[in-house]
Amino acid sequence: MSLILDPAAQDLLFREAHTANTFTDEPVTDEQVKAVYDLVKYAPTAFNQSPLRVVLVRSAEARERLLGHMSEGNRAKTAAAPLTAILAADNEFHEELPKLFPHFPQAKDAFFSERAVRERSAAFNAALQVGYFIVGVRAAGLAAGPMTGYDPEGVNKEFFADGEHAVLAVVNIGKPGDDAFRPRSPRLEFDEVVTTV
Amino acid sequence: MSLILDPAAQDLLFREAHTANTFTDEPVTDEQVKAVYDLVKYAPTAFNQSPLRVVLVRSAEARERLLGHMSEGNRAKTAAAPLTAILAADNEFHEELPKLFPHFPQAKDAFFSERAVRERSAAFNAALQVGYFIVGVRAAGLAAGPMTGYDPEGVNKEFFADGEHAVLAVVNIGKPGDDAFRPRSPRLEFDEVVTTV
Repeated sequence: MSLILDPAAQDLLFREAHTANTFTDEPVTDEQVKAVYDLVKYAPTAFNQSPLRVVLVRSAEARERLLGHMSEGNRAKTAAAPLTAILAADNEFHEELPKLFPHFPQAKDAFFSERAVRERSAAFNAALQVGYFIVGVRAAGLAAGPMTGYDPEGVNKEFFADGEHAVLAVVNIGKPGDDAFRPRSPRLEFDEVVTTV
Repeated sequence: MSLILDPAAQDLLFREAHTANTFTDEPVTDEQVKAVYDLVKYAPTAFNQSPLRVVLVRSAEARERLLGHMSEGNRAKTAAAPLTAILAADNEFHEELPKLFPHFPQAKDAFFSERAVRERSAAFNAALQVGYFIVGVRAAGLAAGPMTGYDPEGVNKEFFADGEHAVLAVVNIGKPGDDAFRPRSPRLEFDEVVTTV
């Protein structure tokens, strides 16, 4: 085989992992979320800009506020998940660049003085980090239920009052419950995705 | 520990993995790229839309065309890498949805008839897949050197003549060479990234 990653790890992270739509009541602890973050924080972003920010929705009151902005089809499962995380891009990530990219601290002003440039960069690099985060949730033996069906402006206003954040995904997290998984849908063949020039 | 992923796999994919800036001459085979794709294709996208498309730059002529659009600081390492992959979002991904999302084939028209909606969705979901792809390259025992420093319009016109694709990253791939890695830059602390409500 061309992969050197252990087959059990391949199964855990990719082959046997599925998006979950139901969860058991078993709580997801802060220690688990910390372990996920302490793993995936190492994965790369441009200029190490690390624009992903995470809001863990734990209180009943905050969950109620979130549900009001979710699409109808996502509401019941979000109400029932042991933990829901709001993943967002911080459009003011450049303030951290002198610390995050110490061998070229000028990057903050040289590349990211324009808001529109920052928004594009934050959206792409935080999306990379959403991908890493989903893999990390699986590394903790948990299932992720990422969703993009919600009112983004509503979520942004409700949870990021500073106006500097843009939600990218809302992710339910927990141990899979009864009938948690849809059957695996087909994937594109290699030749439909990859061309050589 | 809160992670169930084997520590060796944690190291391979995240803790010990680094963005590489130099590579050995050892070739990266099509079999390796296929193995990477056949692993990461399972990771989730919204509606299973799978908008990522990959161009493997193998010929000297194609590499020369690419170099002309790379930022100066990325040119030498891209010229010397055993393999360079252009990762792009397919803005016409919805054509595949009846196959990719068979339990709701109407999604193609119900959600993705507008070009602007498709572009936003493709950019986010293909970026997730760029993240998965980088993890997959590492699963093959290879190092990735993802770059966002290039002229995107130039790359799009040069490699995607149909006008329907948007480049998201250019990634050098290979075994790390001499002095391949910068020292690890600091990461944000958990409390700087994660809040609880």
